Order: sequence, then structure tokens, then C-alpha cells
Amino acid sequence: MRVVPSDLEIAQAHKMIPIRDIAASIGLDEDDIDYYGRYKAKIKLEVLEKFKDRPNGKYIDVTAITPTPLGEGKTVTTIGLTQALGKIGKKVICTLRQPSMGPVFGIKGGAAGGGYSQVVPMEDLNIHFTGDIHAVGQAHNLLAAMIDASILHKNPLNIDPLTIMWPRVVDVNDRALRNIVIGLGGRENGYPREAGFDITVASEVMAILALTTSLKDMRRRLGRIVIGYSYDGKPVTAEDLKAAGAMTVIMKEAIKPNLIQTLEGQPCILHAGPFANIAHGQCSILADMMALKLADYVVTESGFGADLGMEKFMNIKCRYSGLKPDCVVITCTIRALKMHGGVGNVVAGKPLPEEILRENVPAVERGCENLAHMIKIARYFGVPVLVSINRFVSDTDAEVEAVRQKALAAGAEGAYPITVWADGGAGAVDLARAVVEACEKPSNFQFLYPDHLTIKEKIEILATKVYNAAGVRYEPLAERKIAQFEAQGWGKLPICMAKTHLSISHDPKLLNVPRDYIFPIRDIRASVGAGFLYPLAGAMRTMPGLPSQPAAFKVDIDENGRTVGLF
Amino acid sequence: MRVVPSDLEIAQAHKMIPIRDIAASIGLDEDDIDYYGRYKAKIKLEVLEKFKDRPNGKYIDVTAITPTPLGEGKTVTTIGLTQALGKIGKKVICTLRQPSMGPVFGIKGGAAGGGYSQVVPMEDLNIHFTGDIHAVGQAHNLLAAMIDASILHKNPLNIDPLTIMWPRVVDVNDRALRNIVIGLGGRENGYPREAGFDITVASEVMAILALTTSLKDMRRRLGRIVIGYSYDGKPVTAEDLKAAGAMTVIMKEAIKPNLIQTLEGQPCILHAGPFANIAHGQCSILADMMALKLADYVVTESGFGADLGMEKFMNIKCRYSGLKPDCVVITCTIRALKMHGGVGNVVAGKPLPEEILRENVPAVERGCENLAHMIKIARYFGVPVLVSINRFVSDTDAEVEAVRQKALAAGAEGAYPITVWADGGAGAVDLARAVVEACEKPSNFQFLYPDHLTIKEKIEILATKVYNAAGVRYEPLAERKIAQFEAQGWGKLPICMAKTHLSISHDPKLLNVPRDYIFPIRDIRASVGAGFLYPLAGAMRTMPGLPSQPAAFKVDIDENGRTVGLF
Repeated sequence: MRVVPSDLEIAQAHKMIPIRDIAASIGLDEDDIDYYGRYKAKIKLEVLEKFKDRPNGKYIDVTAITPTPLGEGKTVTTIGLTQALGKIGKKVICTLRQPSMGPVFGIKGGAAGGGYSQVVPMEDLNIHFTGDIHAVGQAHNLLAAMIDASILHKNPLNIDPLTIMWPRVVDVNDRALRNIVIGLGGRENGYPREAGFDITVASEVMAILALTTSLKDMRRRLGRIVIGYSYDGKPVTAEDLKAAGAMTVIMKEAIKPNLIQTLEGQPCILHAGPFANIAHGQCSILADMMALKLADYVVTESGFGADLGMEKFMNIKCRYSGLKPDCVVITCTIRALKMHGGVGNVVAGKPLPEEILRENVPAVERGCENLAHMIKIARYFGVPVLVSINRFVSDTDAEVEAVRQKALAAGAEGAYPITVWADGGAGAVDLARAVVEACEKPSNFQFLYPDHLTIKEKIEILATKVYNAAGVRYEPLAERKIAQFEAQGWGKLPICMAKTHLSISHDPKLLNVPRDYIFPIRDIRASVGAGFLYPLAGAMRTMPGLPSQPAAFKVDIDENGRTVGLF
Repeated sequence: MRVVPSDLEIAQAHKMIPIRDIAASIGLDEDDIDYYGRYKAKIKLEVLEKFKDRPNGKYIDVTAITPTPLGEGKTVTTIGLTQALGKIGKKVICTLRQPSMGPVFGIKGGAAGGGYSQVVPMEDLNIHFTGDIHAVGQAHNLLAAMIDASILHKNPLNIDPLTIMWPRVVDVNDRALRNIVIGLGGRENGYPREAGFDITVASEVMAILALTTSLKDMRRRLGRIVIGYSYDGKPVTAEDLKAAGAMTVIMKEAIKPNLIQTLEGQPCILHAGPFANIAHGQCSILADMMALKLADYVVTESGFGADLGMEKFMNIKCRYSGLKPDCVVITCTIRALKMHGGVGNVVAGKPLPEEILRENVPAVERGCENLAHMIKIARYFGVPVLVSINRFVSDTDAEVEAVRQKALAAGAEGAYPITVWADGGAGAVDLARAVVEACEKPSNFQFLYPDHLTIKEKIEILATKVYNAAGVRYEPLAERKIAQFEAQGWGKLPICMAKTHLSISHDPKLLNVPRDYIFPIRDIRASVGAGFLYPLAGAMRTMPGLPSQPAAFKVDIDENGRTVGLF
């Protein structure tokens, strides 16, 4: 058995192509880009105007079944499929979201794919990259400071400090900042109140960056951010605080999508990274719009499972972009299907249980109910579906064949084992050919709900059709806020459900396809600037913590100044 | 009278030279730099090795008299002198510190020189530039989170939470974060305690960036940061917390100096920006080391007056760099000399008082005592001194001549009026010629005190020789901590006095040359990683606030997406 080196070793040993040449390969010249070092560049928004008459390429979304806590290898699949499309001679770009720096030094370590399916320079993109997340944090925190300064300076907007829902942000896993009291120390430090910090990617500014379509549109969305209410119940916006112009200037570079490359030299546009727990968790609309003008095939990724990431991709991102996907790829692992089939329990940071490594076709078949449900969700949207099986050494042919049969029976166009982690693009050539074929099939893309439905109607469609619930229960807080939001005229915004990704339901312990249960809505919040409402089905963390042995302990430079221990 | 447009208008209208060509003009090729867009680049540290056998250029420090709250135009002079040296055919680079973003949106607005003596692209360098300040903030805040996480996870280092002196930082003027309580909300959020935020540039990590000489040296200095004490009184370091390696990796790009240009096309290396209130307030040693290998003349700037900025430049920065200045230029304005001479009071944000605009030679002559004292301080260090008079339209020839006579009498090599704000380099050609001549004079550079003196001996030398005090008074807290620091072995570190810049003394109301007073030391703190002790003579703010009408109100994009209102 071949030994695959660590992600960092592979990435550091790889000889990258100068980004100038990557840009040239998709028709971008020196005036279209800004270099950030030799291997990163920002693409100017004028490129959209320059190529506006070109037809769009094919648009492929990679999603997954309900993952185990280790993940199904969705990013690896996205990058591997991109490399495979390159291998069969297609002009292809993948679009990815930017990872957050905080978790790199926490439990997770950094990543942008893995093995021989990575995008590079991976150190950079896990650390500061081109500074976009920092810009989001600056814009966010300037608004926060302007709120408290406005209250201190005679509160001309009559803001009720107890209604403020705009936290501060930092891109560090810092649990001590979750709940704090600010403004202590006397009059000149302002009005003491309870407050808190989120991780930067949870900022609504990040969601705006991901959903905006132009600089002017971003300016308008930033202005629409609602930070709280006045004493007479009126929403107070960033525009009211005269902060939105400065926030836009702070975000002027960040709005430009970033160009990097895969290990096999395909272009990758990596841009924006909204927190998947309370936002939609996907790369920017601008990244996709641009990629579709610059390539014949664009492979993107939607976070978590198809019930969560793909649903938001379709109902929120495609609603704002006007783009239509041509094909969906649902990734799965045999081990996850076994777990859904009732065998073994995968826990992050612990070795896999022995029984999950043994052949067990019946367990895999039972677990395929989850896969079949995900295929059904994708088909609600009228888009052809393929299944990719992220194959491990311990998976048997019989298990793989069982998945293929179940996938076809559920309506997938095909199902293909891939080995892109170990083999790069060569490990997904069959899948790539099938994707090309599927993209030629008629796609009858449609949303799951129209804008004009009420908030409750939309939630109920999601709960029953997507989460397979028998009905919805609203807690009193949610009831009250839904009524308030409808009265504000926010009812027509799409829904961005905040729920666990470890189950189709709200309860991470309910594996496979839960049924006959009631989906509970505890609370609902509004990201009016980004343009969605997010009901909360459970407690959603917006600030991770550091464990007792954080990844940071191992990170250092070696004698030659090279980074070690990052992954 | 000619009307000079706003700084932003001049900068935006200016046609910049591609940074590639600027780099080539000083012998740097594609492998020596990393582009950040078309007009900014980072210079790799390998350049120091590549050119190590070249002799250093001449090293010129621009400083000032005790400034009015409007400043004496030190940065304008530094850039204007650089442009003037270019104009007379010299190969010259200026080195500057990076401005902090927080104040750009507060009272101050951004700046990097002004009028026709600016460095560009000025919007960028006032906003994110190449991300160095963000990197400092990330490294700083990771350490902060690791402190609280360590205490939560059974406190293996036995840290006494009440001794922690490592705040968190943010690059926003946010007074509400000065005094806060963190860790609320129960066990999983950690140990509740009082804490606070400083502005990012006040971080010791920034001071380290400014004083380091290599990547390995930075790694060591980061490790030496003392964040507090254990219950048994032992200093706890970033090394003890296993944070210094990760902090170094976060700072790996930030350590590379940044290359930009003046409005007249001379190279400018702009790098690091330690807070002048509690650190030494100057651009990095690496910027200067590099510039001295790449040009025949290097013009740099030391913050505030010669009693504060230049003294630290000599006693701290040159001590760590081993570099020796060849010439000092002391800038002054006629209006400031009048104020020191007892006429008029300059207040930021208010029109100049009428009496300060009227000719008053006797007042100017009285105020020249301040200038003479600054010349004396520079001469302690054995370096030739020139005086530049930053001339305004209302200054009369008689006033300028009075300054020249007083400067010569005090031991300056010469004194020259300059008009670089309105005229660019052409406005300082005489000064430039005098600088070239002064640099050929013998310089007998020496420190004001040797390392081995005690903390009190060093403070007393500064107080009596530099601040013109009759003696020093230590408050009990300072007495106790000085004894503690001596016992820790930190006594040999140089002193970085934290005092007002508006007076030679500790009291901003004492203008001109205060005498017969006692200099009070309230407290003393240690930046062991950066490598200095900072006694506090008065209350030093480390987090500015936003005023009722912050500069942010006016900043926006116009119809064409251009920034407006930034200055």
C-alpha cells in the first residue's frame, strides 16, 4: 500500500505554476488581475463586464449525504473532480469558500482539500490569504464601535441598548469572548452593557460578501444591516449610523474574487466564507459568476449535506445570483452509510471502530436511505444528480456496487467510486465523464418555494419536504418574532435554517432518515442586509473554543524558516 | 496664491509607476519581491543576504521640536526631503511606519504625508495595505485566547489570572472595549475576569515586528513575551504557553518590508507601526537595514519631538540594529515656535488664533529655546544636526531668519525653510544639499547610556539631560516594580519612556523648555519580547475613542466606485 505524505508536505513539495500563467490560461491579462505574491491574485470586477456576452459554462454543485463528524470529503471531491475534468481535456474552474483562520489553530487544523486533491498555496489560504476575512472583521467592528459611540454621544437615533444584536468579531477561537460586559470604567468608556464576540466568518458582512453581485449592491446591502431597535421599536440600520460608506471602502478589495490553482494546475476561485451554522456557508456569487464566464465547467461546493448546504445553494444563492445549476454531485463514504445503517459510531479525534472497517453490505444498503433522501431533495429542484463514492482502502467492491444500485434506484444518473485523495484527478475520470454527460441533460431548475409565501409556509415546506418531519412546532419567542418580521416586511426573504448538519432533523442523534417527528423552531433572526431569515432549530455556536491541546501547540517554523505542524 | 487640492485628490490624480519598475530601479528583480497589486510589493528577507557585502548608504533621521497638536509636518518633511534628494540626482529611499486604520475613521483621518509630498497608493496604505497590522492582531489575539484556554483547561502553568497583562487588540477606535469583563456565561466560557482591548498597533507584537532583525530573531522575541505571572511569582511567557511558534507562522509574511513610492517616484519602504505612546513609534529595523543596502541615502522619521522619538531611535532602535545615523534633521514650524514663545494656542479642529498669524520675531526667538534644546539632545549622540523650517504662507522672512540664527547658535550645521507640501521635492533642494554635506562630516555616534546601568540610573539620565528636569520622583508602585524587574534580570533593557509629546516634560501644559521640576514616574511595564521597559509618566491611552462626528461619517464610494471623504 502506497503511503501518502501529509497535506502540508504534499503542498510544500508541489511546484506551482505562476498565477500569471494560470490567469492567462483563462484569458485574463495583466490589467484584469492584481497579484498577491507570485501564486495568488485578485480578479477585478470589470472582468464581468468585459466577458458579459459570453455564454455561461456548466454549473456543477458538489454536496453530500448527512456526514459523520469526520466529513465526507466534499472539498476533496470538488477539487478532485475539477482535476479529473482537466484530465479529460475540459476547461474547468472550481470555486471554493475561504477557510476561517480561527479553527486552523483550534481542533480542526487548516485544510483546502487533502492528499493529491488540494488547492495551493495552502499555507497562505489557511492563514491570511489576501486579507478578505480581516476586511470583514474591520468593517464589522467599525459598525460595532459606531453603535456604542452613538449611544454615548447623546444617542441621536434613540437606540435601545438592550436590543442590540450586532456583536463584535475576531478570527480566533476565543471562548472567553462569547459573553462579556463592555463599556465599564466610567462615562468616557460609554454605556455598560452585555455583549459578545462571534468568529469573524459568522458576521453578516461575510454573508453579504458572499451574496453580493456588485460594489454598489454591496454598498446597499451593508446599509440595510439591522443592528437593533430604537426605543419606539423601529429597526436601526448601518445606514442610519452613517457607517455603510466606510464599511464599503474597507471592503473594496475584499469584494474581488481570488485566483489560485489546484495541484494539477486548474484555476480555482476562492472567495468568501460565510459561517455555515447561521448563514449559507458557500463561496461568493461573484466567484461563480466570474468562473462561469471563464470556463466551460465550474465545480462548486455547498457545505454540509444536501438537506442543508445544497438546499441553501438552490433557494438562497441561486435566487440572488439568477444562476442555474446543471448537475448535482452527492458525495458519500461507505463508513458513513454504515453508520446511518446502524453500525459503528464515528467520533472525531478517535480511531474508527473496528466493525465499521469490516464488509457489511446490508448495513450499507440500510444507510443508503439517507443517500436516497438526498437524491430526492436534489430532484425537487429539477437538476440531474450523480453520486460519488469517496472510496477508502477498506471499502469492498460489493459495498460499492450496493451503493451504485441504491443510487440508481433513487433516481441518480449514475454512481462512481473515486480515489482523488490518493490519486488526484486520475481518481475521478469516470465521474468526470458522467458529469459532462449529465450536464447535457435537460435541467428544469426551480426553487422549492416562491418569495411571496409567508415565513411559516416556507419553514413548513423545508421541514416536511427536506427534513422529513411530520410538522413544525414554534416556541413563543419564535412565534412573536415571526409576527414582528412579517410586520416589518421581511417575510419575503428566503429562509436559511440554522440546524445541525449531523442529521436531516434538528437532533444530531437521529441518523439515516428520521421520520414522524416534529421540527422545533426555537427562535428566528434576520440578516436583512445579506437577505435572509435564519430560524434556529437548536443552539448554534457562533464562537468556537480552543481545546486543551490546540493545533497551535504544534505549529512553528523549522531551522530553514519553513512552516511545520500546520496539518 | 495657488490652491493645493486635497491629499486624496492629489493622490488619486497621480499616475503611479508600476512597482516592478520601482523595484528594478534599486536592483531588485522578480525573485526578490512579492507583488500586492500593481503598486505595492513585499521585499523578501533574502535580499539582505544577497546584498550583504555592499556598504550602507547614509542614514538620516527626521525629527521635530515639541509639536503643537497639529504636528510639525514631520512625515511631509521626510517625504519632501526624499523627493528633494531625488531631484538633485541622489539614489534615495525613505522609510516610514505604517499608519493605523482605527484613527483613519476616528478624529484624525488617514495620512502618509500631504500635499505634493506624499507616498502612494495612499488609500491602500491607510486601509489594509498588505495586511501586516491584521497579522499582528491575529498573533496577539491567538496568544490571548491561549492564555484563557490554558486557565480553563486546568491551568497547568499555574497562571494567576489577576496578574495577566496581555490585553486583546482590535484596529478600531472602540472605547467600549477599554474595560470589559470576559469569560461570563458559565464554565465552558472560562474564568471570568477583568480585561480590555488596546488598539492593535499598541501590541507588543508590533513592537517586536519593528525591532526584529530576522525571522529567527522574531521567533525568539515572540517566545520571550511575558503575559503575567504564576501564583508563585514566576513570569509566564508565550513560549511557556506554546504559542510563539504559531504566532511566528501568522507573522511570516508581515515580517517582509513593503515597497511603495513617493509622488516623485522615489522608493519608500513602509513597514511596522508601533504605537508611539507606549513603544518607540518608528518603522522597522528591517526596513532601514534593507534601504541602506539599496540606496545611497535613506531618510527615516522618528515620531514626536527629538526628546521622545529621536531619543528612542538612538537609544533603542539603533542599539538593536547596530546602525549609526549620519545626520539628524529637526523640523519646526514658525507657528509652533511662537506658541512656545508664549503667543497663541493651537487647538486641533479649531482655526488658528489670529495672533499666531501675525509677524512676531521676539516670540519666535523665545520659542527657539525649544529648538535649541532639541539640537542639544541630538548632539549628545554625536550626530550632525540640520534644522528645516516647514514654511507656511504667513511666515515672514524676518521670522525665518531669526530661526536660522538661533539654530546656528545652538550648534546646528544649518537651517533651511522648505515648502515641500506645496512644491514637492523642489521645495527642499537647499536642505537636501545641506544634508548631503552634513553626511560627509565626521559622526561620533554614541548612546546616552550603556546597557549595564540600573533602571533608575537610566531614567535619571533621560530626565535630567533630555527632559531638563531637576530630578525624578517614583511612586510606590513604580518603586516596587523597578525592584521586581531588576530582580528578574530585566534591568539591562533600554528605557522607552511613555510620556506626553506636547511638552519636553511630563506635563502637556509646560511649553518651550520647562526647568526646575521633578519628573514623576507613576508605573513601569516590561515589553520583554520587544526588549524594552516603559516607565509611565502620566496616563497613557492605548485605545482611542470615536468622537460624536467621526471621520467615518464622510467616507463612502461615489457613483464610479471611487473612494471619497477619506481625508
